[in-house]
Order: sequence, then structure tokens, then C-alpha cells
Amino acid sequence: MEKMTYKDSGVDIDAGNESVKLIKDAVRATYREEVLGDLGGFGGLFALKNYEEPILISGTDGVGTKLKIAFRLNKHDTIGQDAVAMCVNDILVQGAEPLFFLDYLAVGKLNPAQVAEIVGGVARACKASGCALIGGETAEMSGFYPNGEYDIAGFAVGVVEKKSLITSARVKLSDVLIGLPSSGLHSNGFSLVRKIIFERKNFTGNEFIPELGKTIGEELLTPTRLYPSICLPLIKKFGEKIHGMVHITGGGFYDNIPRALPENFGAEIDANSWTVPQIFKLIQSWGNVDWREMFRTFNCGVGMVLIVDENSVDELATYLDAAGETFYKIGRVVEGNGVKIINN
Amino acid sequence: MEKMTYKDSGVDIDAGNESVKLIKDAVRATYREEVLGDLGGFGGLFALKNYEEPILISGTDGVGTKLKIAFRLNKHDTIGQDAVAMCVNDILVQGAEPLFFLDYLAVGKLNPAQVAEIVGGVARACKASGCALIGGETAEMSGFYPNGEYDIAGFAVGVVEKKSLITSARVKLSDVLIGLPSSGLHSNGFSLVRKIIFERKNFTGNEFIPELGKTIGEELLTPTRLYPSICLPLIKKFGEKIHGMVHITGGGFYDNIPRALPENFGAEIDANSWTVPQIFKLIQSWGNVDWREMFRTFNCGVGMVLIVDENSVDELATYLDAAGETFYKIGRVVEGNGVKIINN
Repeated sequence: MEKMTYKDSGVDIDAGNESVKLIKDAVRATYREEVLGDLGGFGGLFALKNYEEPILISGTDGVGTKLKIAFRLNKHDTIGQDAVAMCVNDILVQGAEPLFFLDYLAVGKLNPAQVAEIVGGVARACKASGCALIGGETAEMSGFYPNGEYDIAGFAVGVVEKKSLITSARVKLSDVLIGLPSSGLHSNGFSLVRKIIFERKNFTGNEFIPELGKTIGEELLTPTRLYPSICLPLIKKFGEKIHGMVHITGGGFYDNIPRALPENFGAEIDANSWTVPQIFKLIQSWGNVDWREMFRTFNCGVGMVLIVDENSVDELATYLDAAGETFYKIGRVVEGNGVKIINN
Repeated sequence: MEKMTYKDSGVDIDAGNESVKLIKDAVRATYREEVLGDLGGFGGLFALKNYEEPILISGTDGVGTKLKIAFRLNKHDTIGQDAVAMCVNDILVQGAEPLFFLDYLAVGKLNPAQVAEIVGGVARACKASGCALIGGETAEMSGFYPNGEYDIAGFAVGVVEKKSLITSARVKLSDVLIGLPSSGLHSNGFSLVRKIIFERKNFTGNEFIPELGKTIGEELLTPTRLYPSICLPLIKKFGEKIHGMVHITGGGFYDNIPRALPENFGAEIDANSWTVPQIFKLIQSWGNVDWREMFRTFNCGVGMVLIVDENSVDELATYLDAAGETFYKIGRVVEGNGVKIINN
């Protein structure tokens, strides 16, 4: 009877080791001084510095079917940023500094060069967010994902002093909502996007779209913006003047803004206060999607919202102008529950 | 033109909310006093207690193609334990107490009852490991996974005082290796297992196997043993007398034992020192798998190894006997690199 080996079954331990070799330097480049040990341990080690009352904040997310765009364009060096951004933007909104990140990558067939592209993107995004990539799993799941395809999930842990934790308790009536631009669709709503782009419009992804100045595929694959580099200094400088932060992620404006508000408080958003980027207008028009549905599914150009004391808005505006950052005053905290979007 | 909605594209936010409702109580039952907030925040909050020099240890893992067994048997309440065990057993070996856990669950079609089964299993395993389930993502990825199928990954964070961190520096020549039984295959080597069981043997999964006293499917789906409940009290009681711990995970004996040893130290294992469970013998025989390959792929009945000072072995044995725990003296630390398995 023919002998069977693990490799025969489609799992190649040598390819796994080759992948680790290829990503080693990119991973090490993310290390902070708190990282102990090196790749290859059972767990990732991080020596927490002195805090009075440290609150660890953690989040996990994937990038959804945006992956299908990466497969279609055969471009794998940006999807890692999406995985990092979806997680660090989530933990950021409660005031946490991202400390470390781990990735889970499940592939059909382990291709070391492809793994290196994907994890290279993860590592660059970690570095740009100031967090160390201290662990990860690359699983070869033969027969589970088609060759060349994969799923990725991320996991981020951050820390904040208890007294600096941003909670809804800070929010007051008449607080102002400041929007920070998104880089595009980020990583939400891609099932709908794909249906509109590839089924209704029958695009391949390579079509040049004049309104966008690029191909539709390039636009869709634009990586999710990383907000730590703009928001962490801002949290540090403005402290309690920032009453809340909202990551506009799955569920859009309607589901996310209330997560930062106390009960019986709502928000009124003026859709005329910023220019909705072309990609959202195209999707709305191509799919004949209700604007209400657009704002429940997509960030529509605003990926992060700061809720700010109305007396601090000018100071914040001056700071953001000086830093060369674009921002919009998009609305206010009002009485009553829910989000009301006017002028759309 | 027909209006399109996010739901039309295969993503059902209401089913997502229904899932959250179904798992709420199971998740809350895992909370420790350090958990702040509740489900629905952007991140999971955990107030770290006072430590002198806290080292955070984190790990991520999936359960590989063991998932295919769950799909085949349409049984989804144990796979969550596999996800938890693969992570907490990894962080345990450096002495960490698991604090909290997050899960990533990606499904083709969101079936709230199925999600509740899966996450219920995660929650029970977290509870049994003493860690809080403080976050998770359930992603509906339509067209990515077939209806009824899914992938799951886990992320665990634990903590240990720096002075209690278990590192290879403690290991001495003549240290004794104590093996703790596995519950079966755990979650490694399933690509090979499936090839042997479902392709070579042409089993469906429902065949009763006299040597096992159960069906082959039941045997394969047996959840991975959670070692925190036995190992944490042991680490506390024996402290520095425990020189190392090894989770026998992907890579088996050959790849994992060296991860706990200093350079120029190896291990000699006597395969006669414990009874290899029937399932491993059957797989070896059905697949005509070399025993060397068996020990490089599977735990072969020993899922966790303690490396213990030879002068402490009797004390440890007395303790484990009193606790009613099975254990085996499986080998010793020796000069030279690598693992040598004798008598197999």
C-alpha cells in the first residue's frame, strides 16, 4: 500500500517555513521596545509599561468580500492594511493606543511569495499605526479555499489609562461632529458593491472610469485609511475636549454613531457639509440604491467622526488646518435617539 | 431600474442582530470582574489588575480542516472549543493565565441558530479556561463560503509576571518530560486525516469502529483538550520547578519540543512510555504513514508536555495522582539538537 505523508494531503510544511523566512524582516521592523522574544515562540510576548489603571482594548475584524477584488486584480499587497485598519480604527475610538497585532491568514495553497505580499502589507500598516506585529497564523487549508484564494482576519490590542477612556458619558447636547475623510469604500459593503459592479454593470475591474480618474478595480481596492497617526496625537493634545469618536464601519452612519452616544441623545448630520466622493455617487446611481441604504452601508466619504465640545471646535480646526488635515463639521448632537441625515 | 439593497446582496443585518441576541447570555457568562462594558462597543474592554512587570502573551489559531468534519456531521457545538483550545494551550506554555478571547467567524450564509451553536461552544470553552469572551466578529461573506460552511479563528491574550515567565533558560540536562494525554487528534493534521478516512477508506463518517467504540466521525470531531484547568494550578504550585511546557500542535513532537529547549539541547522520547490511542494506530495503518511522519504531524496521544527538574518529578507525580490526572514520564532532556523517538 502506498505510503501517505502530510505533504501528500496538500499541506506543505517547507512552504510554510519558506513563508516565515520571507516575512521575517518586515515583521521585525514593526517591533517596539516592549516586544520580547522573536518569531517562532508559542505566543507573542509584550511587556506592558507602567500604567496606573491600564484598560486593555481589543478588537477583531476581517475585510469581508473585498478579498474578491484582490483575487480578481491579483494584487495582494494592500489587503493587509485593510485588516489592520478595520481593527485599529475600532480600538482607537475609545482612546486606546494600538500596542500589538496578530493576523490569521487561511490559504488554499501556500504560495510563499503571495503570503509575503499579504503579510508585508499587514506589517507596513502595523508600522504606520505604531503597533507591533507579534503573532500570526498562516493555515494551509487544502480543499477549503481555491488555489490562490484566502481569508484574513486581524486582532489588535491597545491600552488606555482608565481616566482617559473615551466613553459616552462625556457627550453633551450641542457637541459638534467633525468628520475625517475616508480613503474610499474602506472594507464594508463589498457584497453589495460586487453585485452592482460585476453583476449589474458587468465590469471586469479593468474599466477606466473618468469620474474616478482610475480603473474601477483600483478604486475598489484602495486600502482602508489608518486613523491612528492623525487621531492619537489629537487625543493626546485635546484630552477630555474630545467627547467621543466613531469609526464608520459596518452599519454606516446609522448603526455606528449611536454607539458613541448616551441614551436619549441622537445626531443630526448635514449631508451637504462634505462632498460625497464619486465612488459612492456611482454606486448609488448604478445600483439605484436609496441614500438611506447608502448611509447604512457605507462611510460615504467620512471614515472617522470626532464628537467635540462646541467650545473646542475652533481650537481643533486650527490644529487640523496646521497639520494639513482635511475635516468637515458634519453635524451636532441633539435630543432624541438615532441619526437624522438632512439634505441628502 | 430595480433598487438594490445590502440585503439583496446576501448580507442580512437583521440575521446578524438575531445572532447577537442568541449568544448574549453565553458570552456574558464568561465575563470576569475585569471586563468593562458589554457587547456592542467598538472594542472589548479589560481592566488589567496590578502586576509588577506584566508580560502580555497572545496567540492566534484556527482549527484547520477539522471544520470539514463538523460540516459533514452537521454538528457545530464543539468546534468552538477547538478554536479556544488551540490558542489558550499556546499561551499557557509560557506560564500565562488566559485573560480574554476574541473569535472571528466567517460564514457563507448567516444562520443565527448555527452561529449560536458555534459561539456557544466558544463561550463554554472560554468559561472552562477562565477567560472572558470579550469580542468577536461574525462576517457574512456571501459567495465566499458555501451555505452552511464557515471558517473560525481565535485570539487569546494572557498575562504572566515577568519573573514567572517560562523560558528555555530554565531547562537543564536530565530534566524529565512528563506527558499529559490528549483528547484525540485535537486540531492538527486534518488534511491528511481526511484524505485517509474519506478518500482512501471511503468512509462517510458514520461508520462504527469497534476499536474506538464510536463512529469515526465522533472520534474525529472530539474537541481539543483545554489544558488551563490542569496546568494553571500546577504552574502556581510548582513555580520554577517547571522548566518548560510544550503544546504538541502543528509539527508534532519534532517541531514543538525544540521550541522549549535551549540551543544544543535535545530530547529523547520513549514511545513505549504511554499507550498510543487507537485512532492514531488506525490512521497510521490505514494510510501506511511512517511513524516518523505520525510524530511530526500528530500529538499521538500526548497533547501537552511538562519539562520538569528531575528532583521534582516525584512531587509532581504525587500531585497529579492526587488530582486524579493521568500522566506519563515520556523522556528526558539530552545533549545535542532535535528530538529522538525510541521504541516506535
